[in-house]
Order: sequence, then structure tokens, then C-alpha cells
Amino acid sequence: MKTNAGRFFEDFTLGETIRHATPRTLTHGDVALYGALYGPRFAVQSSEPFAQAIGYKHAPVDDLLVFHTVFGKSVPDVSLNAVANLGYAEGRFLAPVFAGDTLWAISEVIGLKESSNRETGVVYVRTTGFNQHGERVLSYCRWVMVRKRDKASPAPEAHVPDLAGVVDPAEIARHAPKLTIDSYDFDLSGSADRFSDYEIGERIDHVDAMTVEEAEHQIATRLYQNTARVHFDAMGAAATRFGKRLIYGGHVISLARALSYNGLANAFTIAAINAGRHVAPLFSGDTVSAWSSVVDRADLRGRDDIGALRLRLVAVKNRPSADFADRDADGKYDEGVILDLDYWALMPK
Amino acid sequence: MKTNAGRFFEDFTLGETIRHATPRTLTHGDVALYGALYGPRFAVQSSEPFAQAIGYKHAPVDDLLVFHTVFGKSVPDVSLNAVANLGYAEGRFLAPVFAGDTLWAISEVIGLKESSNRETGVVYVRTTGFNQHGERVLSYCRWVMVRKRDKASPAPEAHVPDLAGVVDPAEIARHAPKLTIDSYDFDLSGSADRFSDYEIGERIDHVDAMTVEEAEHQIATRLYQNTARVHFDAMGAAATRFGKRLIYGGHVISLARALSYNGLANAFTIAAINAGRHVAPLFSGDTVSAWSSVVDRADLRGRDDIGALRLRLVAVKNRPSADFADRDADGKYDEGVILDLDYWALMPK
Amino acid sequence: MKTNAGRFFEDFTLGETIRHATPRTLTHGDVALYGALYGPRFAVQSSEPFAQAIGYKHAPVDDLLVFHTVFGKSVPDVSLNAVANLGYAEGRFLAPVFAGDTLWAISEVIGLKESSNRETGVVYVRTTGFNQHGERVLSYCRWVMVRKRDKASPAPEAHVPDLAGVVDPAEIARHAPKLTIDSYDFDLSGSADRFSDYEIGERIDHVDAMTVEEAEHQIATRLYQNTARVHFDAMGAAATRFGKRLIYGGHVISLARALSYNGLANAFTIAAINAGRHVAPLFSGDTVSAWSSVVDRADLRGRDDIGALRLRLVAVKNRPSADFADRDADGKYDEGVILDLDYWALMPK
Repeated sequence: MKTNAGRFFEDFTLGETIRHATPRTLTHGDVALYGALYGPRFAVQSSEPFAQAIGYKHAPVDDLLVFHTVFGKSVPDVSLNAVANLGYAEGRFLAPVFAGDTLWAISEVIGLKESSNRETGVVYVRTTGFNQHGERVLSYCRWVMVRKRDKASPAPEAHVPDLAGVVDPAEIARHAPKLTIDSYDFDLSGSADRFSDYEIGERIDHVDAMTVEEAEHQIATRLYQNTARVHFDAMGAAATRFGKRLIYGGHVISLARALSYNGLANAFTIAAINAGRHVAPLFSGDTVSAWSSVVDRADLRGRDDIGALRLRLVAVKNRPSADFADRDADGKYDEGVILDLDYWALMPK
Repeated sequence: MKTNAGRFFEDFTLGETIRHATPRTLTHGDVALYGALYGPRFAVQSSEPFAQAIGYKHAPVDDLLVFHTVFGKSVPDVSLNAVANLGYAEGRFLAPVFAGDTLWAISEVIGLKESSNRETGVVYVRTTGFNQHGERVLSYCRWVMVRKRDKASPAPEAHVPDLAGVVDPAEIARHAPKLTIDSYDFDLSGSADRFSDYEIGERIDHVDAMTVEEAEHQIATRLYQNTARVHFDAMGAAATRFGKRLIYGGHVISLARALSYNGLANAFTIAAINAGRHVAPLFSGDTVSAWSSVVDRADLRGRDDIGALRLRLVAVKNRPSADFADRDADGKYDEGVILDLDYWALMPK
Repeated sequence: MKTNAGRFFEDFTLGETIRHATPRTLTHGDVALYGALYGPRFAVQSSEPFAQAIGYKHAPVDDLLVFHTVFGKSVPDVSLNAVANLGYAEGRFLAPVFAGDTLWAISEVIGLKESSNRETGVVYVRTTGFNQHGERVLSYCRWVMVRKRDKASPAPEAHVPDLAGVVDPAEIARHAPKLTIDSYDFDLSGSADRFSDYEIGERIDHVDAMTVEEAEHQIATRLYQNTARVHFDAMGAAATRFGKRLIYGGHVISLARALSYNGLANAFTIAAINAGRHVAPLFSGDTVSAWSSVVDRADLRGRDDIGALRLRLVAVKNRPSADFADRDADGKYDEGVILDLDYWALMPK
């Protein structure tokens, strides 16, 4: 069999490491396209002189372009037969990526648990992305529900990894070089609000909204070399429970992050992803908006230039962000919530 | 308030200067995307060797990509609460921009005039774009009708700036280096017609036509980091008088300019914008075509390499360009006219 | 007449050479956009270090981006008044193209034959693409049915060129440098299958499928500066026999080639196009899938690093690739077949 039909649940072995195809050189072309697909306006990623003035070698590539590229590598080996992408944890951005760098990735199987109906099972992987020098640039865990090839096949002993609920801020400082904050121009960045201006519990309505077209999410998802068929094949999708193409969940993360500029203009880089959940699917024609809340604040050891804000970024579809649609005490989400992402962002002090 | 809700009419002060976020490095990626969104075929911008052979350091970035990038910077500060973009004047391209240059912009408020209904007012700004060396690359005036926050709030004394009806051709020669016209290859540029072949009063039907899709104008407008909500939010747009997303007016300018290659292949760069008006809105699904007329011709002092053609570029929707839809003696436009742009182009002699 | 209305059949002269506008510098921006439009995952083109490890100076530009760029140059001079693009032969990729190279092209008229109804005629051209050093990078023949301006105008004597049915594999080795196969990493390339693993007669179902949107094919076709009106003008298209925009045939070739990665991951470059036929048109909303068969295998003189596989790549619309829709003994194609391409690919031994 020369074609890759994807792994089924019984094809995974606890502890194995999978080396993924295809290494990918990210260029200014990818950066431009990423920008045009989402419209982020963070100054550090947009301007070479701005980035260099504060201490970066070059303007870094948007963290989420790095995330999607690494994620895309793992799809053919991990989630081609996935029913659902269940969650993320322990995501850490470990080094900035610049145009011209080449990313490649491996995944380690860190957990396996057959579902009670025996038709599927949950696979937990830790995926690590590297640059051309072999330096780790990103590491994260995700778990997906994967179909079994054969309901009758025996299941491995259940093993559910113990994942941290939040990334320790002591581990996240490496992602940004030591910054010269005197050179950080708060006019050019678009907001005077810095670390000290955000309070725990504060909620921010990001105001703007974007409607998503089929061409946009398809172009984006191919940019990441993520070729999961559900995102591209309208004919095949007609036979599914949704009846139409499903938008890659990462597309929502990027849209929400770009929208969050309006209110978080100086949250210039994502240092860690604590948790993430795709609450409901997004389809072409839906309109996405977002709100954030400040969950925590952390000083970073040895760093007086920046602090870390722990943010919850909630994306909704087809309703105003000003509603602050949320989950209730039982964890049940309001109508329209599509993403609940918990992350650490770095911000000038 | 951490989010930018945009300025209302009463927030502007005559004479104030606004320094805009976000500086933006334009790369070969942006240039490629611009080309794919409109399809321009001017040889100087398309080919590095062609540009270098005639005297450019590198192939310059399309003038309109520069214009839209600078314009995009001004949107969050000037026109987020605009009802209409009324016009342009005194636009001058002052230096070529190359891939790798970083653009940033300021706007000076040069006029204010409350509307008679007291619900809106016209704001006049002169926006100037700079490169990373602090050199001016573009300057233009535009005026927009902006909502008042409160109808009852007092209005400043009316001041309407005195703007030139046409940019003096003596001021426009700087935009292009001294060219070696012997090296300008009229086969490769696509036409043998040069400055001396165009006569005042001549009209050119640009023949071709392009239908615009939602994904295209959204990608383009985000490329310029212009995040005015009306272009992206179908849900919000449903409640407006149009009931749908409005296409950024600059998208029409770029389409019409690209279409004008067929008939003006050697009008290789825009040196100045004398006047511009978005006569009617464009929506997804509409088909755009264009025609031009030669308004004037000017020799440029000290330049025997190039001359300037003053052109009127008229874009229409959903009707053939061959109709030469125009305005009548009273200034009333024919059905279908969407853009009336008066500019100076440079052309080899 | 300053606009190009395109040549009609009687405007072509046997033996004449046409030098095409517009030279085009291909950059990393064009490469990124090409990738995002089709989603190819071949490691050689995706990764600079992968390409360099095996002996390339840089990651080469996708062969089909080269093909479409050269093809696009020829459209305004050859096929603006074409009724149909009938076929390709003797296509040879002669040197790798890298980001930063500038392509330009000429076409020689090698055959002319008026149709029996005297309303059209078939024009045969050999189009050659060059880089900025004047080196040939691609040469191919195509023949198109072109309208006559006037049915009554006299036709030239019919001349149909004698074109090879298959490119001699002895001529195709130049396209790839001598490779260090020990450094070719079959994990990173996505498949362990190499030259010796493919057998003549073998058929491969490429499994995946992609639905095409108007915005996607328009962006792609403009990327190639191919501005043939039928691809862009919905208003004009409404009056044609199809009633809608026709997708550029090259878009289908690129989609099918990208889909073929799944099953042919190490067929890393196209060395020659033996024959190609656009069997039926593709429209927006259609879903494309593909299958391949191995027609022949060839050792290449003096090359123990690579061999050549002669492949037939068949694209279908709106039906599963697993049906292996084909042509019957009379040459009649099954419902849904849109492309039948016969090419030589190079593969590590």
C-alpha cells in the first residue's frame, strides 16, 4: 500500500516516537500570506526595525504560524482518522522562529485509552517542533479521539498522562530575548497599555468580527500543509453529520488572536498554551468575534523587561462578542462559543 | 477602555498630528500576494532585471500597495467611524519602495466641517508615509465623513482646506530615477506605445473584466492591515443599508489599474493622484471593468527620459467598459460607475 | 489600437517567433502562495536543508509554477482568442528554477491548420522559457484552436508538426543535479517507496480530494499573470455555453500533482511532459481527485542516483478517485474525467 490511509487507534504504541514528514522552510512569503489571512497587527511581528530596536535579531514569525506548521506535520501520522481533536496542554514556545528557518517535528505517544463503545480510542501525543539547527521551537500535548480499524481488536492497557493544568511561568521566559523596553514605541504598537495596566479578572471585548470564506480557510490550511480531507472535500463532507466542510480549528485560534490585538496590542507574543478546547465547529459563512479575560499575572524571574499575562481567549460565532458568551458553573458552554483557549502572553512592563 | 472604538468627529482637533500604528515591513511575500490579487503585468514591478536595466536599484513595489499600506495605518485613527470616504487630492509618490522597506505613517488634521444635520462632520487629513530611513514615500489628502459621538456636542469652527485640483507636474519627477530608455525593452513591456503616442482627449477601453469574490477583497484588505469592520463582518453588515460587506474602495483602484495595463502597458508608475472619488460601492459578485482617458500631457523639467500623462481612470461594475460610462455635464454619473480617479503616470519618451 | 485584442488564426505565420511580455521574477512569495493554493508536500521543494543535503543549490521552485508562469506569458500572444486548449507534447524541464530567478519566454509557430468549417484553425507553438541568464528552463509544444477574425480570409497551407509521443528519457536527466541519495531522508520525505518499488501497470488511488473555489483559481491564475478573460469575468461568462467562469486547465494539473503526493511522495520532480489533455472543463464548486498509473520505467544513463517513472495522472471531478475512471478502447473518456496527463517523474533509486 503506497498511500497513507492514516493510523487507526490500534496502530499506536505507548512510548513510540514518530518522525513526521515534510520539513518546511518558512519564508517571508508564508509570513505575508499568514498576515493577509488573519490581519494581525502586532508591531513586533509586522516590522523588522521595531523588532530589532527592542532586541530581536529579526521580526519573528507569528507564534501561531509556527504552531500550525508543526501541527500540520503531525496530521498524516496522528489524526487522519480522528473523530475529534479533544484538547491541548503543556504548550511551550521555546525559541523564536525567523523567516528562512526550517521546521520539522516528531510526536511521542504519551497516552492511550480505548473508548467504552470500543469503536474509538483517545490518543495522547507530545509533539515537538525543531528548527534546522535541531533546536526545539515548540512543544505541546494534544489528545484526539481516533477510530479503530476493527472494533474487535484488543486494546492496550489504558494510560492517561498526567498533564499540567497550567504551564509554570518560570519555564516560559526563554521565548523572548531580553528586551530594550525604552525602544518599545507604544504609539507604533497601537496602545499605551502595558503589563501593569491589566488586572486579574478584567474582561476585554475585542469588538471586531470576521466572516470566514471557504477559500480563506482552505488556503490557510494548505499553507500549513495540513491536508486533512474534512477541510477540503465538499463531496465527501456532504455525507457527514455536518454536511459541509469543517474549518480547521487552528484557523479559529488565529482569527481570535488577530482580533485580540484590539485590546491587547502589546501582548506581543504567545509564550505558552495552558489549555485549549474547540467547543463547537466553524463553517464557511460564519462570523467570528472574540473576548478575553485576564486569568493571572506573573513576574518572570530575572526579567524586569516583560511580564506574563495568563489570558483566556474565547471565540464565538454569529453573535456579538459583547455578550461575553461563556460556560456555566457546570462547564456547559453558551450557544455560539467555538474556542476556549488559555495561554500565557508576554507583555512589556 | 483598552479597545479602540475609533475617533468620532468631536475627537479631532485642527492642526493635530496623529502618529499611526503599526509599522509594516513589506516583503517579496506581500508583493507576490498583491500581484495574485489583481494581476498587474507592468514589467518594471514584475522583473528585477528589467527594473535594474533601466536604472532602478531593484524592482519597485507597486505604487498602490504602498498607498494601501499607508492608508491602512490611518484607518484605526481616522476612519473607523466614517460613514463615507469622500475624496482624495494632492497625492504624491515621493520615493520608490522596495521589498524589505518598512512603512509607517502620520496624519495631520487639515480641515474640519460639521454637517448641517449635526450628526456627522467632514474630517480632512494629510497622511504621509515614511520608510525606515525616515524618507517620505507618499503624501496625500483625503476627507471622510465621520459620525459624531453626540449630536449635541459643540463643533469646531469650520475650516475647509484649499486643495490643489491637480498636482503640479514639476513636483512629480522624483518618484522615478533617471532611466536608461535604450534599455527599456518594449517587447518585454508588452506594448510599443510610448509617451508621444498618446493624445489629449484619447479614450482607451481596457477590454478585460474581473469578478470579485469575498475571499479576495478580505485577503487584500487584511494584507494592508486595514481592519475596518464593514469589509469583514457579514453579520454586522446585515443590519446596514447595504445588507452585505462593503469592498474596500482601494480594491477597486488596484483592479482598475491592473486592468489598465491593456492599453497603458508603459504607464509604468503612478507619480501623483490629483483627485479620486468612490462613486458607488462594490460588492462581492460584481464584475469590474475600466476605461481611461488622456486628460493632459506634461514634459518634465530636466527629464528627456520620461514624460507624464494625466489620466482619468474610470471603473464600472456589471456593464461593459466599451460603454464608456461617464458623468454628465451636471456631474451626475452614469449607472455602474464606481470609481473616478485622476492621476499622473510616468511613461518612457 | 493600443489594447491587445489577441491574435486570430490568420495573424499567425508558420515559423515566426514571438517574444512575450512580461518578464517575471519568481520569489519566495510566489512559492508560498503556490504552496497554499495546492498543498504540495514534496520535501525537495518544501525544505531548503532537505534540498541542499541531496545536492541542490537551493530548494527548487515547483516545476508546475515554472510551467504556469511560462504558459501565462504566452497567453496574450497565442491564446486570447482560443476556443480550446487541445494538447501538450514534448515538454521538457531543462534546469531547476530558484526563488529570485526571472522567467521570460518566446513561442515559435510550428504548425497551422484551418478547421474544415473555416471559422477556426489550430495553431501549434513551441514555447520556451528562459531564466535571467538566458538558460532554457522549460520547452513544450501546445496546440490551440483559435478563432478566425473573418471566415472568408484565406488560410495558410496546412502544416501539422510531427511531435514525439513520448520524450526520450535520455534527454531528461539534466533537470536534476547529481543527488546524494544517502542524504535523502525517506522519513522526512513521507514514504519509503523508491524507484524500484513501482511496477509498470501499477495503479495508485491518491485518496484525497479538494473542492475548488472561485477565489482560489482566480488568485492562482493571476499569480501566473495569465489574464485570459474566461477565467475571471462572470458577467461575460454568463453568455457562454457554460454560463460561468471556466477554471484554467493548469489549475487542475497542479491540484492533481499535489494530490499525487499521497502515493508518489518521492516522485520529487517532473522532468518531462509527454502528453496532456484537458478532457472536460472544471468549475468552481467541483471536487477534484486523482489517480495514477505507472506506464513505464527508465534507467537514466550515467545516473545511479535516480530513475524515471513514466506516469499517467488522471484527474476526475465529483466522483471518487477509487473508481479509476478512465477512457475506453475507443478513446472515449468516462464521465467525470477532466485531465489525462502523461509525464516523466524522477525518483531516488
